[in-house]
Parts: sequence; structure tokens; C-alpha cells
Amino acid sequence: MTTLWRERPVGVVGLGLIGGSIGLDLMALGLDVRGLVHRQATAERARKRGLARQVSTDPAVLTDCALVLLALPLDQLLEPSRDLLAALPPGAVIADLASVKAPVLAAWEPLVPRFVATHPMAGTAEAGVEAGLPNLFRGRPWVATPTTHTDREALGQMRALAGALGGHWLECDAHSHDRAVALISHLPVFVGAALLRSAERGAEVPPAEGLPQLVRALASSGFADTTRVGGGNPELGALMARSNRKALAEALGQYRLALDGLEELLLRDDWVGLLRELEGCRDLRPEFL
Amino acid sequence: MTTLWRERPVGVVGLGLIGGSIGLDLMALGLDVRGLVHRQATAERARKRGLARQVSTDPAVLTDCALVLLALPLDQLLEPSRDLLAALPPGAVIADLASVKAPVLAAWEPLVPRFVATHPMAGTAEAGVEAGLPNLFRGRPWVATPTTHTDREALGQMRALAGALGGHWLECDAHSHDRAVALISHLPVFVGAALLRSAERGAEVPPAEGLPQLVRALASSGFADTTRVGGGNPELGALMARSNRKALAEALGQYRLALDGLEELLLRDDWVGLLRELEGCRDLRPEFL
Repeated sequence: MTTLWRERPVGVVGLGLIGGSIGLDLMALGLDVRGLVHRQATAERARKRGLARQVSTDPAVLTDCALVLLALPLDQLLEPSRDLLAALPPGAVIADLASVKAPVLAAWEPLVPRFVATHPMAGTAEAGVEAGLPNLFRGRPWVATPTTHTDREALGQMRALAGALGGHWLECDAHSHDRAVALISHLPVFVGAALLRSAERGAEVPPAEGLPQLVRALASSGFADTTRVGGGNPELGALMARSNRKALAEALGQYRLALDGLEELLLRDDWVGLLRELEGCRDLRPEFL
Repeated sequence: MTTLWRERPVGVVGLGLIGGSIGLDLMALGLDVRGLVHRQATAERARKRGLARQVSTDPAVLTDCALVLLALPLDQLLEPSRDLLAALPPGAVIADLASVKAPVLAAWEPLVPRFVATHPMAGTAEAGVEAGLPNLFRGRPWVATPTTHTDREALGQMRALAGALGGHWLECDAHSHDRAVALISHLPVFVGAALLRSAERGAEVPPAEGLPQLVRALASSGFADTTRVGGGNPELGALMARSNRKALAEALGQYRLALDGLEELLLRDDWVGLLRELEGCRDLRPEFL
């Protein structure tokens, strides 16, 4: 298979954390990267950071690209602009990188013949044109969710690109992907956010003088870790919840069952049962690391 | 005030993470530290690590101590042995270091005239005689929960000792302390454990081929952080829950309200409300760091 993207320009639409990191890695491989961004100021910063060989706010920058990576925020991705659609080179492989796959496929598969839905599982808490890092994808899963309509050759092109960036290629159906990320990525946002809110409220009800200050003074690294994603980017959290509503609602149902089980052991004073359940959870955790 | 523990031996009962760390710091201050442990093998390892000047399995090692720190696991602390009680020097300041305060006070205040209940908020995931670290308490809160029965001079002795180890002294009533740690320390154990269990079960129900493997492969640092304390020491988690049952049950009630609120926003498709709530949680988190 010829990896056309090694010989012809590669387009990256959006140069934030994911797009910028991909740009840096592709540039390091010596490729001709073309970046498309919304604003002039972003284009200038992206140029200075060397995220692409050419950066423009004009979709025409994508002309001649053999492959275009859509590294847009989920809301923009789900409602692609006419200008962007018009500028995508006919015949190019178009791939997205978003964290929810079924709605992206529903939006894009009817529009673009060689569309590939993917999700590199990598990131930091940062966002924006300064956030991109080299080697962000190295050793991380890079999931693809092909359908019966997916062009196998286009899928192979993306697989080769993900491999060139050090990602571990994984294929599954979009529904399974969205259920999995609901459980291991979107549910933790709700779980941690609820912990923050309950630590605040629980120190106020019933009222006790000085308790709100005390909980804040005593919170340690365990509390900080458990609430890191729950206290993270609210726009991203809300957008992921919206785009993966059904799977997240199911995940919350499972979470409620698990929490009910622990609470019941506590209220029944079943200390042997509680110890066993916590031992089970301790043994489970390494499977997810 | 004369800090007698600077001139006479200081006893440490139990030389695990907390007791061993205190031993190292007190030894570094040039004090005469006497360690009491259960087993000969532990005594030998503690001597090799320099956790105390004398280490013994014989409670008589505590003779002459002006101050004795009880660094025992909570279950042993709540049911003190006759031998230990008999060996505590009359008139000495006796202080505990456990993470729940009301039941410790209930057990110890009637037994010892100069008892001081304290809780240094420091720790690592490690346990046992090899776990102790120098400077573990530096810059960390060291909470004391005096009662109307507490000997003020004994309290002052402990305050000076906590200060010598770099701890930030804080005083509050035992009930407030136990409510605070239920929210910021014990609740996160349940919250994280339930997340581990629901990630396992949610990948099985409804069944989908390969999903259990997929959730494990895709779990990233966010999932790892959110479940760190939930997948931690089960004995400690169960023991803290047992000793702080009422406050933890209340904390779980508050948590359920917070989670219900988030779920309701999701199920009502109230994306503006969800964004606002996640923004509120993001703004709350720095107050706890």
C-alpha cells in the first residue's frame, strides 16, 4: 500500500492540543503539513511554534492534501461549515480524532466518501495553540471505529499514520467505543464533580462552625487525585456528556448500583463484606492501568 | 512551658508508616526514641532502619518516657491491650495519631489522664516497618481534637512536638474532624471503588463482544487518578468506614444528592445547566488544594 500522505501534503484542521501535537510529530517526520485555523492570531502563533509548514485561515490551504485530519472541538466537528466541506480535496482520506464516535460517523459518513473515524487516547489538561506536545501519542491507544461503509484503503492510510506517530492501533465498532469511553472517561468527570460538590455541601449541612474551612484545609492528595478530571475543563465535560448521552446515562446507572452496594454494606455493618468488596476493587484496578 | 519530651525519652508504639516516620524525624532531632513493636523480626528491621534508639517487643521499653505516641492501626488502638496500658508511664502525655477521632477519645480518655487525640494528615500508599520516611509531616496539617477533659499542658507538649516535625497545628472538635475526613478522605474511597466496579460491570451489561477488554485497554490517567484511593488499601478503607460509619453515611447522602443533580441535568438535556454545574465544580476544586 502506498502511503500517499508521505508524498503529498497532510492537512490538519484545528491546531489545539491534538491537532498541534500531530502537526509537531508530522513535521518532525519531514512531512508537508498544512494547518487550517479560525483566526489570524492563532495562525501566527501556530507558525511560530512550527506546528505546520503552512498555516492559514483560508480553507484553500487544504488543496492537494492526500489526507486531512479533523482536530476540531466536538461541537464544531458535528456541525461542519460549508466552507470546510467545500475545501476538502475530492478523493482525500478524511479522518476525525474526536472522543465520541457514533455521532461523528452519523454526521460525516454521508458527506465524505473516504471518511475514517478515529480516537487517539492521549491528552493533557491543556488546550489551545500552545498546548501541542511532541510524542503525545507514543505508546497510547489509537482507536478506529470502521463501519461497513469505511473504505479499507483509507483505513489503512490512517493506520499507517497512527503507527508513524507511535500510537497502538485498535479497531472496534463505534457503539462499543462510546460505551467504553462513557465508563472510563466520561463517568469519572461526573463522579469527581459530584465529589467536589458534596464536599462543599456536606460541610454546610448540618451547619457546624468552621467546618467549611476545615474540609478545605484537610483535603489531601487523595482528594485532589479523585477530583482531577471532575474539576477539569467544563466545556469538554459537558460536550462529551451531550454527545454520548445514552452511554453515559447507562454508565451512571451501573455506577449507582456499585455505590448502592457499598452503602448497603456500610449501613448493614457488614464489615467482612465491605472488606471483601474493597479487596475486589483493589484487585480490579491494575487491570485498567 | 518545658517540653519534657526534649529531655526525656519519647515512646512510639508501632513503627509503620506514621510511627516510623515520626521515629526518623525525632531521631534526627537527637531525641532518645523508644519503639515498641509486636514482633522480633519487626524490631530488628526497625533497628536497622534507625527508627528509634531502642526497639523492643517488651512494653517495659516505655519506662521513663515523658510522652508516648500511639501509632497503631485503628482496630488495635480501639482495643488497647492490658500489657500496653500497664506499661504506659504514669503521668506521661499519651497521644494517638489515628484518622478518626471520636471513637479513639471514647476509648482512651477514660483510661489515661493526660490523653491527647491528634491526626497528622500525611501519608503514602505504603505500610509497614519499611514505609517510614523523613519529613513526612513537614507542611502538612496536624489536627488535634481536645475536649473539656484534655490537659492543656499535655496539649501544649504535643503541639510543640508537631511543630518540631514541621506540622501545621490545627484544633477542632472531634465531631467536626470526623465529618471533615468522612467528606475528603473516606468518601473518596467509596467513590473510587464504585467507579472501578461499575467500569467492570458496565462493560459486561448489556453484553458486547470484546468490551471488557476494550475498557481496560482504553482507561487512561484520568481513570487511574480517580480510582487511586478507591483501589488502595482495603483494610484501611474498611476500618475507617467502620470507625466513622455515621459521618460516612451522611457524606454518602450528600454525594448521592450531588450525583442526582448531575444526572438530572443529563437526562433533561439541560446542557447549559450542566455546563454551569461543571464550571462551579471546576471553580470549587482549587479551594481544596
